[in-house]
Amino acid sequence: MKWNNLQSEACPVARGLSVIGDRWTLLVLRDCFMGVRRFEQMQERLGITRHVLADRLRKLEAAGVLRRELYQRHPPRHEYRLTDRGKAFYPVLVTLIDWANTHVPPPGAPSVTLVSRETRDPISPMLVDAKTGAQITHRTVRAVPTE
Amino acid sequence: MKWNNLQSEACPVARGLSVIGDRWTLLVLRDCFMGVRRFEQMQERLGITRHVLADRLRKLEAAGVLRRELYQRHPPRHEYRLTDRGKAFYPVLVTLIDWANTHVPPPGAPSVTLVSRETRDPISPMLVDAKTGAQITHRTVRAVPTE
Repeated sequence: MKWNNLQSEACPVARGLSVIGDRWTLLVLRDCFMGVRRFEQMQERLGITRHVLADRLRKLEAAGVLRRELYQRHPPRHEYRLTDRGKAFYPVLVTLIDWANTHVPPPGAPSVTLVSRETRDPISPMLVDAKTGAQITHRTVRAVPTE
Repeated sequence: MKWNNLQSEACPVARGLSVIGDRWTLLVLRDCFMGVRRFEQMQERLGITRHVLADRLRKLEAAGVLRRELYQRHPPRHEYRLTDRGKAFYPVLVTLIDWANTHVPPPGAPSVTLVSRETRDPISPMLVDAKTGAQITHRTVRAVPTE
């Protein structure tokens, strides 16, 4: 299996990874959800080369996950914003955050908590079926090929 | 930021990626959740080199996500099983599957549906706060540094 073939893969995990299956890409998305929109900020926060960051941003734009917007005309300056497709990715980041907080605890370092924007209370993510409200675990749900 | 420093990162996204932030690793975990336990099966399904697969399995075992079990003594043969830490990763895969099914549709190829093991009904994953039941979106939740 070639990575550039992944998008035509029947498996949605593989297809999803064809868009975001790169560690820098996920960290770029993390920053986008934290309101970081500008190339220089991202580069400073992530400590990666301009080349790598530009490449990941270009791919995310091509995949319709980010869109580039002009925020200054002279000289022209762009910022990157999440599209609806990008915003819809949030649950993947949240479940990853929750898993890492529980199962890959930082060695002493300060960590990150998920809180309600409204009440500031910490929230604990749970994945449920929208129809029944039943919790989704590997014991209750499985992925089957669509007929 | 060096990838081998990621695990000591305060950011849980970065820490999570230090364990599973690799496309092959996620596809290996996908197979584990589908009940694939043996090296040869995984290699055949994924079409990767023994070297790469062995490396990813070793890392997942070292991270406590998979455990290796002897299933045959003469000659010794091992299979790979998800630990509790590995099983707890399921919501990340499910949210990725759901995102990809909606936002990275396969070009004509058959896809995968999430169904209830009990009723076989398709389920649609929704991420909620376990306490309040309120849906988690980028508008309602944010990640803040823990004091």
